[in-house]
Amino acid sequence: SEVKKIAVIAGDGIGPEVVAEALKVLKKTEELFGYAFETEQALFGGIAIDERGTPLPEDTLEICRSADAVLLGAVGGPKWDNNPKELRPETGLLGIRKALGLFSNLRPAVVFDCLKDASTLKPEVLEGTDLMVVRELTGGIYFGDKLRRQGEFGEEAVDTCVYNVTEVERIVRQAFEIAGKRRNKLASVDKANVLETSRLWREVVNRIAPEYPQVELEHVLVDNCAMQLLRRPSSFDVIVTENMFGDILSDEAAMLTGSIGMLASASLGEGSYGLYEPVHGSAPDIAGQGLANPIATILSLALMFRLTFGYEAAAAAIEAAVAEVLDAGHRTSDIAVDKSKALSTAQMGDLIVAAI
Amino acid sequence: SEVKKIAVIAGDGIGPEVVAEALKVLKKTEELFGYAFETEQALFGGIAIDERGTPLPEDTLEICRSADAVLLGAVGGPKWDNNPKELRPETGLLGIRKALGLFSNLRPAVVFDCLKDASTLKPEVLEGTDLMVVRELTGGIYFGDKLRRQGEFGEEAVDTCVYNVTEVERIVRQAFEIAGKRRNKLASVDKANVLETSRLWREVVNRIAPEYPQVELEHVLVDNCAMQLLRRPSSFDVIVTENMFGDILSDEAAMLTGSIGMLASASLGEGSYGLYEPVHGSAPDIAGQGLANPIATILSLALMFRLTFGYEAAAAAIEAAVAEVLDAGHRTSDIAVDKSKALSTAQMGDLIVAAI
Ligand SMILES: CC(C)[C@H](C(=O)O)[C@@H](O)C(=O)O
Ligand SMILES: CC(C)[C@H](C(=O)O)[C@@H](O)C(=O)O
Repeated sequence: SEVKKIAVIAGDGIGPEVVAEALKVLKKTEELFGYAFETEQALFGGIAIDERGTPLPEDTLEICRSADAVLLGAVGGPKWDNNPKELRPETGLLGIRKALGLFSNLRPAVVFDCLKDASTLKPEVLEGTDLMVVRELTGGIYFGDKLRRQGEFGEEAVDTCVYNVTEVERIVRQAFEIAGKRRNKLASVDKANVLETSRLWREVVNRIAPEYPQVELEHVLVDNCAMQLLRRPSSFDVIVTENMFGDILSDEAAMLTGSIGMLASASLGEGSYGLYEPVHGSAPDIAGQGLANPIATILSLALMFRLTFGYEAAAAAIEAAVAEVLDAGHRTSDIAVDKSKALSTAQMGDLIVAAI
Repeated sequence: SEVKKIAVIAGDGIGPEVVAEALKVLKKTEELFGYAFETEQALFGGIAIDERGTPLPEDTLEICRSADAVLLGAVGGPKWDNNPKELRPETGLLGIRKALGLFSNLRPAVVFDCLKDASTLKPEVLEGTDLMVVRELTGGIYFGDKLRRQGEFGEEAVDTCVYNVTEVERIVRQAFEIAGKRRNKLASVDKANVLETSRLWREVVNRIAPEYPQVELEHVLVDNCAMQLLRRPSSFDVIVTENMFGDILSDEAAMLTGSIGMLASASLGEGSYGLYEPVHGSAPDIAGQGLANPIATILSLALMFRLTFGYEAAAAAIEAAVAEVLDAGHRTSDIAVDKSKALSTAQMGDLIVAAI
């Protein structure tokens, strides 16, 4: 069958360790399902700053562009936190999102059975929580003009938040599509009582809504959403929102599940292209020790199979293998009750590979 | 003693009911402590839109300006939600904040003993949670230029977020002062890895910090803060942040305590002037039925005594009376376990008055 090209960005911290396990899973699916993948490693983030003097080298972009999808481990760490802007991993992250046109960030927040108790929320409140934040990723205040100037009251800084109807339409339409394939509920989050961009956002949502009559739509103000996520998390299905609100709310939503270390995410552009990465960060404190949990990265690969390649059977097989290994009681130290029995990153990866 | 002038804005929904109880408390403190208050009612919000065609009539502003402090019940309701911008209660709210120079919004999030179980968080996580969000209230994206225009990709909307050093300095300094009178911990929340206004913010915080060597400072990114509030709420003391982030985080913080219906807030300007209001909204669904809980409004009055008038003894007496009434098991329906035994708004007010 057709060879699929995957750009692999191991990145910083625990990135290389967790990506290595996902690549074992990739290889196993080649054997089992007859797929053919071609992977190419690319430098990105802190390591690219160190080795190439920029977080996003041009050839990394080329490798990503010529691939069908990107698998990313994690980037960043305290080492680069005080660098000037052009030499910071986040600058690379914003750059790659824009350069690859990844306008839509899907961040599922689900509760893993084995982690039910890891949440700080009461189990009865959490029961049934399974939501997806669809965050606009290439617009808004992240990418608008920024400046410093002298004003009447001393130096001032300016950030500009801009959205056009085209940008809003494409993300909102995608969110309606996703809701239509889930539980048919969409919450559009904005601050339309204050922001002009939010009023435009809400107009577009209301204009598109009639195309999806089966999807129940609610408009929720961002401050209220931050509360409702705590009060009734299980009542949400899909939440769609702009870049900055999505950054905040998706982290809140992921954290309330208690499963943040196990969550996968996808950043999609036009067509089937996508970048896949775990929701968790680069965890510099445990890097290089074989302690990291590779499951979020492995589930990110499953998401790539499903959303970019349409390999639903393999995606489901990977997810089932993860569930089976967890059900059998196997744990890495982050999710182990008895840390002394915790598996290493590679042991967990091997067990999942074996279970597929 | 000197006569203190209080502008009283009953507002919409349950506003008039809860304010009426706070005024009974005010009267009782005149008798007990020999204070002299002069109150003047002012129209504001939805009721002002209905009766005067604007949410913030000029004479309301005059009444507020000539007073020493403002007590506000609540404003807004579905009746005005689809009005054009100039005829919406929120527009009045933003207008009054700006006109009165109320640049600092203090929103305490504490757990009331009698409401420990009302939170969706596990009690052991919540244990000891007592934090204060200090939100900048008259700057940022709320008040920057807004516009619509035709762009390359159709209509677009723009919001501008602006902060100057003077605006940041005064709120940050106030937050350090407050932290110095509490547990000496300050978390400054920004998105300095993306926003220029946040970088300015962080510079100012770092420049002022050495003036408060006893206060332990941490910088927290807004997305991380949304997570840490859930993970370790009791580790926060004072959180200072810009307007939009403060809107979201203060609601999240209030909700996680489970006590949102009991929380008071203050909006302060230069000097001792302040506007005091409950954190909860106008609750149109229960308005006019005598069901509302007046405690948050009564505690807002106590906060006025403390912060504007320096009447610490009376403030403490009111707070002790509230605690006593709650300890004795008295509840309004929102916090009653057995709703059939719930008190009315006026009964709760009378009990607190009697207990002072
Ligand atoms: C690192 C930062 C720039 C980034 C963002 O704000 O988008 C991160 O928080 C995320 O959510 O991917
Ligand atoms: C009603 C709205 C404009 C207001 C705000 O966003 O400031 C409210 O949410 C608040 O927090 O007081």
